[in-house]
Amino acid sequence: MDTPRAAIVLLSGGLDSATTLAVAKAEGFAPIALTFRYGQRHAAEVDAARQVAAAASVREHLFVDIDLRVLGGSALTADIPVPKDRDLSGFEIPSTYVPARNTIFLAYALALAEVRGAQDIYIGVNALDYSGYPDCRPDYIAAFENLAALATRAGVEGRPTRLRAPLLHLTKPEIIRRGLVLGVDYGLTRSCYDPDERGRACGHCDSCRLRLAAFAQLGLTDPAPYRTPVDDVRAAMRPPAPGAPEDRS
Amino acid sequence: MDTPRAAIVLLSGGLDSATTLAVAKAEGFAPIALTFRYGQRHAAEVDAARQVAAAASVREHLFVDIDLRVLGGSALTADIPVPKDRDLSGFEIPSTYVPARNTIFLAYALALAEVRGAQDIYIGVNALDYSGYPDCRPDYIAAFENLAALATRAGVEGRPTRLRAPLLHLTKPEIIRRGLVLGVDYGLTRSCYDPDERGRACGHCDSCRLRLAAFAQLGLTDPAPYRTPVDDVRAAMRPPAPGAPEDRS
Repeated sequence: MDTPRAAIVLLSGGLDSATTLAVAKAEGFAPIALTFRYGQRHAAEVDAARQVAAAASVREHLFVDIDLRVLGGSALTADIPVPKDRDLSGFEIPSTYVPARNTIFLAYALALAEVRGAQDIYIGVNALDYSGYPDCRPDYIAAFENLAALATRAGVEGRPTRLRAPLLHLTKPEIIRRGLVLGVDYGLTRSCYDPDERGRACGHCDSCRLRLAAFAQLGLTDPAPYRTPVDDVRAAMRPPAPGAPEDRS
Repeated sequence: MDTPRAAIVLLSGGLDSATTLAVAKAEGFAPIALTFRYGQRHAAEVDAARQVAAAASVREHLFVDIDLRVLGGSALTADIPVPKDRDLSGFEIPSTYVPARNTIFLAYALALAEVRGAQDIYIGVNALDYSGYPDCRPDYIAAFENLAALATRAGVEGRPTRLRAPLLHLTKPEIIRRGLVLGVDYGLTRSCYDPDERGRACGHCDSCRLRLAAFAQLGLTDPAPYRTPVDDVRAAMRPPAPGAPEDRS
């Protein structure tokens, strides 16, 4: 029996990264989870990452402290309010955008991949409902893979790192369906940009609204804890957009 | 009179980055110096960066703590001996190579550039005597610039970050000559991978030997402090290689 090859999986503790971790396992890899603690990032999310990694029996789970506060510039790292109930139909880059965040995360993942002899990095970025972040687009992913091939000893020696973004072209409901088939417990995951001190989601930031709308489209209740009872939050959601997969029947 | 535009300058406190800072000023920029404190990195080098930045009257000097120890894998961050007096004629990647280090540094620089509205990043990499590091090659620099254009809000909005590597094609003696013309005080800089507790250089690691050989080729004495008296170190150096700029007369 072959020993599964190691792959680095960026794991925030949110819905997308938990699904990505499950995909990495389903694709035959032994995942090494990599979680970043930064700035005002909430302990609830890091705890969620720990629980998700444990539930998936990862080979190893590394936590790296990174100091994004010194850079400021985002509602997620500086004293700027998290926007609530904003219009998500446009492609404006929101104030929760953290400058170059995925580039910083992927740079660490690349270093870890080289140190552990892993040739694959999984990242849960998503181009369809990407909330306006420039570093979640397919061109960006391709450019990082191109950089990775030139950046490391492994690349120079003919083993370039592959960047895998299995959610890139999935809608949020498709991501959840994929995860449920793979046994992801979404009750362990946290996506909110502005949780309370008990880790309960706000229900109104971009991340909560995309997530709640997706569960609603699937006719499911999000098992994660919310400050507002979930049924109230769901009642406040718009109906599923025309053309969403659930409306094709 | 125009206000000089800001540029981010990666500043380690070594010879190359001090020269790069002087070039950025000479090219009309107001430098924002960015220094990383990481792993076993020696306080002497960070102090050198502070002095070099002060001498150059930078607009701002930021220090970012980054945790490379968790990744291990290098003589500069893990408990692996720094190699001494090794053969520098080949292109083997040495154990002082820190996996993906420049990618991590540039990712932070990219974030800072966006936050400060700077469109230019200076890095002192050098392809000629680059000591075998893959992330010091021209192709790597081009690939990062390509990534940067896709990674940030500024890039999306048509103001892609430029990556400037003014030392890329210079020899070490050419770098020193350039810096001396621009008034760099190399006595403030530190390059050694293995300084003693007083910040004095070892004279035998790759970085010391490349630096000492370059000063020797120019007929100069390196003004930085060494554990061994510099004349002893110089006497132990091989004569300048044929084809070095100083031998063309």
